[in-house]
Amino acid sequence: MTRKYELCGLGNAIVDVIASGTDELLAALDIQKGGMTLIDQMRAQKIYNAMGPGKETSGGSAANTMAGFASFGGKGAYMGKVADDQLGRIFAHDLKAVGIDFFYTPLKGGPETASCLIIVTPDAQRSMNTFLGACVEFSESDVDEAVIRDSQIIYLEGYLFDKDTAKAAYLKATKIAKSAGTKVALTLSDSFCVERHRADFQNLIKNDVDILFANETEIMALYQSKTFDDAVASVRGQCDIIAITRSEKGSVVVTPETMDTVPAAPVTKVVDTTGAGDQYAAGFLFGVSRGMALVDCAALGSLAASEVISHVGPRPEASLADLAHQGLAA
Amino acid sequence: MTRKYELCGLGNAIVDVIASGTDELLAALDIQKGGMTLIDQMRAQKIYNAMGPGKETSGGSAANTMAGFASFGGKGAYMGKVADDQLGRIFAHDLKAVGIDFFYTPLKGGPETASCLIIVTPDAQRSMNTFLGACVEFSESDVDEAVIRDSQIIYLEGYLFDKDTAKAAYLKATKIAKSAGTKVALTLSDSFCVERHRADFQNLIKNDVDILFANETEIMALYQSKTFDDAVASVRGQCDIIAITRSEKGSVVVTPETMDTVPAAPVTKVVDTTGAGDQYAAGFLFGVSRGMALVDCAALGSLAASEVISHVGPRPEASLADLAHQGLAA
Repeated sequence: MTRKYELCGLGNAIVDVIASGTDELLAALDIQKGGMTLIDQMRAQKIYNAMGPGKETSGGSAANTMAGFASFGGKGAYMGKVADDQLGRIFAHDLKAVGIDFFYTPLKGGPETASCLIIVTPDAQRSMNTFLGACVEFSESDVDEAVIRDSQIIYLEGYLFDKDTAKAAYLKATKIAKSAGTKVALTLSDSFCVERHRADFQNLIKNDVDILFANETEIMALYQSKTFDDAVASVRGQCDIIAITRSEKGSVVVTPETMDTVPAAPVTKVVDTTGAGDQYAAGFLFGVSRGMALVDCAALGSLAASEVISHVGPRPEASLADLAHQGLAA
Repeated sequence: MTRKYELCGLGNAIVDVIASGTDELLAALDIQKGGMTLIDQMRAQKIYNAMGPGKETSGGSAANTMAGFASFGGKGAYMGKVADDQLGRIFAHDLKAVGIDFFYTPLKGGPETASCLIIVTPDAQRSMNTFLGACVEFSESDVDEAVIRDSQIIYLEGYLFDKDTAKAAYLKATKIAKSAGTKVALTLSDSFCVERHRADFQNLIKNDVDILFANETEIMALYQSKTFDDAVASVRGQCDIIAITRSEKGSVVVTPETMDTVPAAPVTKVVDTTGAGDQYAAGFLFGVSRGMALVDCAALGSLAASEVISHVGPRPEASLADLAHQGLAA
């Protein structure tokens, strides 16, 4: 059976504000380096006032993945909540412009479209501060059942668990997917997010998730493991496919029967690591949607991640389809 | 007498939306390549719908110049009109973040903050489509007399002449400057802008302007000259200092007594020419404000232009003060 969408992402719809900054600035603002911290409007104001001039660009973890998926040539949909404001229109435009169908009802009269204040330090590490804004209103009514039924795979952010309404939307989407034979993919999003929702994530992975994405820190946080090998032993067999990224060490793909290590793709200069995990998932899921071998899926993930960390911003600037063809030709 | 500000810019306060595009896209949208076209909201919607994903960044010709001036280490102020909206707050933040004092009263209940839809073609040429939005409300009441009296030089965009209220503001600022011994600098902005206001500009240059910026096309349009040399002959002596940029041919600085050609600074790869003229003016005016020789002013202009065309976006990303020190050391 052919479905209209190969992948449907659900997540926090966010516009990023990216600025360069020093480690001293992070310290002065008491920002946790490398993490994603949820902030309120007052804190957002304080950080923004102290930040340098910004570049605004559409972001949001799952939305970034969808943009990457489209860049590979995949057919995708997205669900998330923006407000009826300028940033919301920018977010919607940028998804549509890359060919992703965005299903949404903009929020009127509530909080503004979410923004993420990202400070990129000279070591290319990004530290994210998210004001969830309109995202907190993402709820079950924003989940379009027909679209999920017409998708091969849905892809969900762990970040959705940070608000109860979004969590309910997540669970609804998963239930529909299960009944429709749609595969469920989850990213753990962030180690602090894992700390907040450890038991929920463990249960979900065991019962509902087909494909799990995590980085090394997140998977160790999930099982409170002392070593990477312990974490792999704990997660193995909990779901069909587990893809774990390890930065420059590449990624490890674990199934009940196999375990493969795939190297990172070479990068001339790492400029900004924002979106690395999101693009890895984009490449991996594109491979899965086209029935490729898992090591090839991981190689596409590495390729997409290498593109996005070579420039400022969380979405690809080069055609990932072209890069993949060049990679296959090389 | 020491003044608080070395330079005060007045101009259209605009947020840029920059996307890559092909020559075919320009043709399909009937966009004049390399120019700046004023568009209404319907046309903006049409172009935006057809554009790829964008990067939003604060722009506006004179505001870009002020950001460059601050990057050299200059003390600057700016006046322009934004709306009380998200883009307006971004614009204000980005000027403040580089150390420019922005004097403004945000517009409530009127049009949105201005935006400029910029399509950058593979040849690095930018084509600009400006929806003036709140800028059309920039008026005499937005001109802060005390700030102009406390500035060494004011810098004005020719673009301000496109609306009568802004033109009145321009004339008020010039009158204050004349009475306060503040120098007046003008950029012709764009050859189509020159076509629209030729007689006005000719009179202003003769009567009110001390320092004139133009590119080759603009200065030829101003005097309807057949050759560059004819244009130079026409403008020479009309005001004290005339700096004419000629892209990769560098710039020519003309005074009643002298005429010097200064080469362009080397660039490894031209990525996006947006802001080249604005940054040239920033470097030149920084030199003037510090009493440097005109050829050195022009060299600083070339340096700043070379930095901005090497990346996407109209404002410097490297410290121009550092680049200038390296340049002087080399």
